[in-house]
This record gives sequence, C-alpha cells and structure tokens, in this order.
Amino acid sequence: MFFVGIYLDNAATTRVDERVLEAMKPYFTKEFGNPSSLHGFGRAAHEVLEQSRTKIASKIGAHPFEIIFTSGGTESNNLAIKGIAYAQKDKGKHIITTRIEHPSILNPIRWLVKQGYDATYLDVDEYGLVSPDLVAHEIRKDTILVTVGHANNEVGTIQDIEDLGKICSEKKVAFHTDACQSFTKEKIDVTEQHLDLVTLNSHKIHGPKGVGALYVKMGTKIEAVEHGGGHEKRMRSGTENIPSIVGFATASEILGEKEIQYMKNLRDKLISEIQKNIVETKLNGHPTKRLCNNANISFKGVEGESLMLRLDAKGIACSTASACSSKNLEPSYVLTAMGMPVEDTHGALRMVVSHENTKDEITYVVGTLVEEVGKLRAISPIWRG
Amino acid sequence: MFFVGIYLDNAATTRVDERVLEAMKPYFTKEFGNPSSLHGFGRAAHEVLEQSRTKIASKIGAHPFEIIFTSGGTESNNLAIKGIAYAQKDKGKHIITTRIEHPSILNPIRWLVKQGYDATYLDVDEYGLVSPDLVAHEIRKDTILVTVGHANNEVGTIQDIEDLGKICSEKKVAFHTDACQSFTKEKIDVTEQHLDLVTLNSHKIHGPKGVGALYVKMGTKIEAVEHGGGHEKRMRSGTENIPSIVGFATASEILGEKEIQYMKNLRDKLISEIQKNIVETKLNGHPTKRLCNNANISFKGVEGESLMLRLDAKGIACSTASACSSKNLEPSYVLTAMGMPVEDTHGALRMVVSHENTKDEITYVVGTLVEEVGKLRAISPIWRG
Repeated sequence: MFFVGIYLDNAATTRVDERVLEAMKPYFTKEFGNPSSLHGFGRAAHEVLEQSRTKIASKIGAHPFEIIFTSGGTESNNLAIKGIAYAQKDKGKHIITTRIEHPSILNPIRWLVKQGYDATYLDVDEYGLVSPDLVAHEIRKDTILVTVGHANNEVGTIQDIEDLGKICSEKKVAFHTDACQSFTKEKIDVTEQHLDLVTLNSHKIHGPKGVGALYVKMGTKIEAVEHGGGHEKRMRSGTENIPSIVGFATASEILGEKEIQYMKNLRDKLISEIQKNIVETKLNGHPTKRLCNNANISFKGVEGESLMLRLDAKGIACSTASACSSKNLEPSYVLTAMGMPVEDTHGALRMVVSHENTKDEITYVVGTLVEEVGKLRAISPIWRG
Repeated sequence: MFFVGIYLDNAATTRVDERVLEAMKPYFTKEFGNPSSLHGFGRAAHEVLEQSRTKIASKIGAHPFEIIFTSGGTESNNLAIKGIAYAQKDKGKHIITTRIEHPSILNPIRWLVKQGYDATYLDVDEYGLVSPDLVAHEIRKDTILVTVGHANNEVGTIQDIEDLGKICSEKKVAFHTDACQSFTKEKIDVTEQHLDLVTLNSHKIHGPKGVGALYVKMGTKIEAVEHGGGHEKRMRSGTENIPSIVGFATASEILGEKEIQYMKNLRDKLISEIQKNIVETKLNGHPTKRLCNNANISFKGVEGESLMLRLDAKGIACSTASACSSKNLEPSYVLTAMGMPVEDTHGALRMVVSHENTKDEITYVVGTLVEEVGKLRAISPIWRG
C-alpha cells in the first residue's frame, strides 16, 4: 500500500531526495566493498567513507577525525551519554539535562540513574527555553555531562547552545547537544559554540534512515558502547554502512539559505493564516527562536489526535507530538514542562514543513483545518464558542 | 574510484542483489514514512515493516514477534550478550563462549568481564569444532549464557548447534548463536535446534549493509541495550530503517538449494584444483562440516598477506582472515586456537565464493595462484621446494 498526500511531518522523518538516492546507488551493487578489506573493493569503500566523513565534518566546522558514524540519532545519543558516563565515572556521576529532551536522551540517562548515576532535569520556561544561568548554577564538582538539545523536536524551540557551551567549557564539563532537528537548518560551529559532542542524523534531512553520526571533540574522554571489530577508531564497531553514509553526506548539502528562507515563508504562512482564520489558537514554542519548519499549534476545545486523524483522512500527514510518543496517550511531556495545563496539551498539532512543500498545499491545509476544527468544536463538550 | 574484479571475499561483505535494490527503492522516495507515525505514511511503513519481519521469521521457524531489527550483526551480538547479562545478573554472571568467535562476540564479553562478569573460552579441535560435551561440562549454576557461532567466519567450520542447543535447553541456560555467515546457507530452525537467540545479518546475504536482526525466543529474560523511543517492542530504540529492512527481507529469499549447490561446486573446484596444481597446501577448517562457500587454504612458505596483495593486483579480491582483523598484523587467533603453529597462520588465504561467481573466474584464480605462489616461494627464505 502506498500513501500519497501532503506530508507535514518532517520532524518525524523526511522523504529521501532523488539526488541522495542516485548518489547511494553505485555503492549497493558496484562499489560494495567492506572498508576494512585491504583489496581494491575495500580500498574504494574506505576512500568514499573518508570523503563522506570530511563532508559531514565540514558542515559543523569539525575535523574529519572527530566524526563517528552510527546507525542514527538514537545510537549517537546513547553513545554520547553512556560513553561519557563510563569513561568519566572516576570524576563523577552527575548528568544535567532538561525536561524536554527526546526519549533517546532521557531514557539512557534514566538507565544510568538505575546503575547509580545521578541526574538533574532542568525546568524550561513557557517557550521551552532553558536558562544558561540555571545550567551554570546546577553544575557540581561531580558533573560530567550537560546534554541539551539544540532544537526541540515537538515545539521547535532553539536553545542558545553557544552560551551553554561556553559555560560548560569554562567549568570543564563535557557539553553535548542533540542536533537531529537542527542540522543543516541552524548554524552549528563546534569551535565557536564550544561543543564537545553533537548528535547528527540523516533521515531528518532527506537522507536515508539508519545512519547518523556523533561529533566527539578531539581529546574528549569517552568510551565505546558497542564492542566488536573496532571500527570508527574503536569508537563504534560494525561494518560501516557505506551507501547510507554516502547518502547522509549528500543530504547534508541539500539545504542552503534559499531553501531555509522558503521553509520559513511556508511556516509563517501556515501560522498566520491559521491565526487569521481560526479563533482561539495558540502557537506553542518560541515565536522567533524556532526551527524554520516547525509550527506547533493548540486549538482550544479540540483534541489534537482527533484533528490529526481527520486531516489524515483528507490526505494531510502531521502529528500531535513526536512520532516516538505517538502511540501512547500520555499528554506531551514537552508541553507539560513548558507549563501548559494538562487539558490543553491534548489540543496541540505539530505541522513541520520541508522545502518540498508548496504554498498551494499550505492553503489546502489551512482550509481543511478551518473545516475540521469547526466540526470538532461543534461536537466538543468543552467548547463554548 | 571504482574497482572491477573477481570478488572472492563474500564473508566480509557481499554485493547487493539488483532485486534487493529494486525492492528497497520505493521506500526511500515514495513510501518514506516513520512506522511510529499514525497517519497514512506511517501506517504504510508499519505495514511493510511487519511484512518484512514475518519474512525473516519464517526463514528460521520463528514467530514474527520474536524478531528484533538492529543495525547489523555487531549490534545483534552486543544486544544478545549484554541484554542477557544485564537481565540475568541475579541468576549469575558466567558466560561460556569459544576462542574462535567473531570480535563482536569476544569484545562485548571482555567488556562485561571488566564489569565483574566471568567468562569461559572453550578450546576447539584442529577443525575448529567445539565439543558439546565440553560445553555441558563447563555449564555451572551461575552460567547465564552460552554463545557459539554457527559457522566460523574465517575457516567456515559449522558447529553442531542442535546438540549445543539441546544441552543448554536441558540445563536451562540461554543459548545464542551468531548466524551471520550461515543464514540462508545452512538450516536454522529455532525450535528443532533449541535456539534462544540468533544473530542474523543482511550484508552477508546480498542485502544492504546497516541492518540485521536478533531472534529472541519468546519468554527469554533479556534487557534492551540501546534506550530511547521504545521501538521494536522496547528492545531496540531508533526509527526503524524501513528501506534496509525491506532489502534484508528480500535478500533472505535469494539463496535456494540450487544456488547453494552451485556455490559448493565452485568451492570444491577451487579447493581441488589448488590441491592438484600447487604442492604443500592445507585446507583449514573441517573438510565436510563447512560453509558452502568457504575455502581457507594455507600455502607452505608463503605469507598470506603478500599473496593476497599480489592477487589484488591481478584483480582478485580475497583476504587472509576476517575483514575486521585485516588491518592488524597479529596472527589469526582462529587458526592459532585450532592448534596451527604461529609460523603457519600467516600463510592462510580465505577465498569465499558467492552464487554470482563463475567457473571461469575460478579457473583464472587457480592459474593466478599457481603463478604467484610460485614467485613467492622462489623468493621465500623458508621454502626449500
């Protein structure tokens, strides 16, 4: 079964760009060697592996040596958190994060807490911003890691990672940022922003699923988490996934200033037309410090999930929260942490555009929203419009 | 740079079959949804995910529910070993394995030993076979896992996993087998062979790199190792790699009786013609209990690596040991464990055919071997031919 429709769920995953697939193809069926092999097939694979590493590194101002390829954002986050925790346990066992991180940050930390580590979960303000002062205040002598996501996957709020990085650098604590949502959309410069570890992901930037990377600043004390043949400078074992790594590197070059501005225009059109045509809506997240493609909007008196399913029936794909959380009925912990009353968290709809969406699609989406929000409010027991 | 030649390194990795790539393509650019999403794109992805799971399960007589998709063999082995170790530590901390396992088995165990676990490394005989009696003898009250690879990646020796499984089942110890080299080539039936955990891999069977699976028998006490959004029944977090999973499932159907017999014929032609035309060679591994595609041969007085590089220069890709170990100069620990004198371990050459190789290629390889072995022996200080 194939589904054709308007895809506004680009924070969950993105369509692979045709240029990416074209770049990948030869590495499946022609140049298919294992980069660890010493023969010609192996050397060719090794060469393109290092070319791809250089390409990814250059996007964040890193040295190629500092890029470790992984199977994706979740693995990179696990490696960053557990890798630091294992390697620096003699210094301390305290980790600082926020209440609004992705489950692949929160759950490795929770697991470490069960093994005797200690964690501080920072509060955020109504926009989802964490205060750098609060981070500075919470760093202790035994703090080994601060991990704060660059851009939140639900509400799109962008943290001031440079301020956070500077504080951690001064206090000599490793700073990690999960940049799965922001990579290629927001500036990332590991030197200027004082970043020690950065999680990058391919399938959020029109690259293939199943591949990502972790930037690890040279000299960072970190241990491997997956053990085996000692690939990726002994930091991540397992035969390197060459076609996907090539696709990832190709995808990292898709978005330029033009595409980003185009997404901002689509996003702003979506937000402003909703606000103009539907009463009692609320934009969740920060009004300006937000991802170029994220619109997260609450509709008073409406259940987000009902609205999402009605849009789906009209060929529009979006979500209520992150894809990972979509199959449970808990209220969004991100919106809750931002101080939203529980009854309102169920009314949020996340629409995330890509540069492949069109203005006509946005017009259709707004028209459909007007109609469906109206219908849902008409039958809502709590809507007194 | 592209390399064209005769590829005889199919234990390191294999060429992706065109049918596999064709099956994968739509899932990159058309049906690209995240299976966790509730909308149409997500439901379509979820549907094909479960179809693929069913296909893989059926190849080993498992229930689809018992298949966990991973990023490959290394991750599956890590998950099996650490997952059991974490979950059953109250029962005990003793793990049994052999001296000839892949690094993705040995290194997770070594890592656990550093955390306070205990390991027994079983000896093997001159053919690389482990004795089921020895396994029975070594199982203790605190043994929680026995892990023995189905077929060795260097010498191709096939263990009697049914006997091993039966012993473990009787003693109520989890039995894991790494079937990366044997999957689709040798019979695997999880019920008949009493298997609790089986590692499967895609890129050794003409599927894409970066995807594999772990079979976990229903009811097995095991913990997740990678934490996050709770995918794969909470056993392996991270967005499911749909195109690669589809490719893996497609690849699992490539080899039938015909292809296996064809590979056996090629392998036997390679071995017998080498033995007929070159004096003082030795077939390493078991003469009959061996993979349909593996020929591992020592040439007296010749350094395997020199021979391998000379073959490479003539367009023939093979290896001296496993790809993972190819960049270090240690003698093969597999051959050493099989009792081979250290001076002989450096003379081994691993040639692993696929159903895509031809008889003409084998003839060319043997001719080249005759020539190059002759040259190397002529300059060898230890060859007194």
